[in-house]
Amino acid sequence: MNTVTTTSDPVGKRESVLILTPMSRFYEEYWANIIKLQYPHELITLGFILPKTKEGNQATTTLQNHITSYQKSAAKKDRFHNIVILREDFEPAISSQDESVRHKKEFQKARRSSMAKARNSLLFTTLHPSISWVLWLDADVIETPHTIIQDMASHDQPVLAANTFQRYMDTEKNQMSERPYDFNNWQDSEAALKLGASMGKDDILLEGYHDMATYRALMAFMSTPDGDLHYEVPLDGVGGSALLVKAEVHRDGAMFPPFSFYHLIETEGFAKMVRRLGKQPAGLPNYKVYHYNE
Amino acid sequence: MNTVTTTSDPVGKRESVLILTPMSRFYEEYWANIIKLQYPHELITLGFILPKTKEGNQATTTLQNHITSYQKSAAKKDRFHNIVILREDFEPAISSQDESVRHKKEFQKARRSSMAKARNSLLFTTLHPSISWVLWLDADVIETPHTIIQDMASHDQPVLAANTFQRYMDTEKNQMSERPYDFNNWQDSEAALKLGASMGKDDILLEGYHDMATYRALMAFMSTPDGDLHYEVPLDGVGGSALLVKAEVHRDGAMFPPFSFYHLIETEGFAKMVRRLGKQPAGLPNYKVYHYNE
Repeated sequence: MNTVTTTSDPVGKRESVLILTPMSRFYEEYWANIIKLQYPHELITLGFILPKTKEGNQATTTLQNHITSYQKSAAKKDRFHNIVILREDFEPAISSQDESVRHKKEFQKARRSSMAKARNSLLFTTLHPSISWVLWLDADVIETPHTIIQDMASHDQPVLAANTFQRYMDTEKNQMSERPYDFNNWQDSEAALKLGASMGKDDILLEGYHDMATYRALMAFMSTPDGDLHYEVPLDGVGGSALLVKAEVHRDGAMFPPFSFYHLIETEGFAKMVRRLGKQPAGLPNYKVYHYNE
Repeated sequence: MNTVTTTSDPVGKRESVLILTPMSRFYEEYWANIIKLQYPHELITLGFILPKTKEGNQATTTLQNHITSYQKSAAKKDRFHNIVILREDFEPAISSQDESVRHKKEFQKARRSSMAKARNSLLFTTLHPSISWVLWLDADVIETPHTIIQDMASHDQPVLAANTFQRYMDTEKNQMSERPYDFNNWQDSEAALKLGASMGKDDILLEGYHDMATYRALMAFMSTPDGDLHYEVPLDGVGGSALLVKAEVHRDGAMFPPFSFYHLIETEGFAKMVRRLGKQPAGLPNYKVYHYNE
């Protein structure tokens, strides 16, 4: 029977963590980052869900090979507690991984509805009673602080988002630089709420389209010069690229709506659902993780 | 990895069933009915959730004793595949089990929100990837056909409700009779939709209160003289007393909203969520199960 805790001292309290990753491509850098996590691996369960496409089949095989190899060769104390791999049992929304196609607005609702179902399938089938924390980590997030779990858990927030950036070559300055990547972490605006109120019940608000200006305050642009890693802001919408959730929030019913929920979908709809459950999501503008550069 | 099916021939296809029961009191008759189910027990997992109250403690002990005794003494083929017992990790909404208190309208929202959280906790922590069907069966449902799983699954519906009645002594006729018990299985009405539209966003519609006439068509009163067990009607709201759900519907994200969702909550909100996911719940007016008579 369940007597688990969820506290700001998860290592000390030996709290179990479930890391959930929807994956369509396998990135070596993602896996290299995962195995370097300094949270006790025997308290970590990894869960993956992959589409039943040709690309998904390839990624599954590569992922399985890496898992088998690691779990066999690692010292016993470094092995993960458990690893679950699921395949999506619904049709993929769009097969293209081409970024220009994926970001087209008309594809976004179908794509994000499909992603929401994948997240829900993964969550509903892996959330064992022993789990205290769920870390959502996208398969293309290839670099995080190795102490991300304990760093974020120390905030003791029901839902907490890191700030996802992307490294790139600044050809003008001829040096590496970084830019914000996840625009789904935001604080709401009057303009967005009005826009939503004028929409049909199945329509959704999307961030990052010029013809749908929401004037929301994006966490992507809230990092501060002092770089205080623990600077915290409240959020009304969240992204799923690096998101720590107390397991009890999911257990109370917070999932990723695959339909328009207050004109929001997927992770942004999840944040709204968390608020409907009486909890306040938050984010860490200076706590950066990095997305693969496609 | 998952290759489970969910078909109208669950016994033939060896499909796994999860029976979920939120329980605050243990009824001998509930357990006697469960162990008589004719679906192969090795394909059945039972999941229970009980409140952390004095009454919940007693029920947990009694339930555990019955489980231990049964699983030890039953022939190997009659033992259940797995049994999970959870305790609620949130405060109970109302401690009284007195029916007159429980049915008071002002208590209903808190009570049903709490019940929704219990159902979600139970669901999110027991829905193993191998599960094809989820049968929600309330702890006070003490009599069902022993073939309820295969009977209901044969309809191949995403969500299907049985009709819950209650046996009682008709003192005028001096003989046993039966009356409808679950009023949460209904087809929507213009009046209810209008009433909802006039409410605040946190207010909920409730069935069975004279000062909130919804004029919904209740499945409780749809049984037909021919008694055709397979007569099927579409439903917009469902109760949870005896409800068969395809596991994929839950996996896509359908849960029991503990907050007002289109002015509906818990199982009725679940039905609305199923419809938002593009699926249509249904019910069997002549397929009766029986509630304990308090």
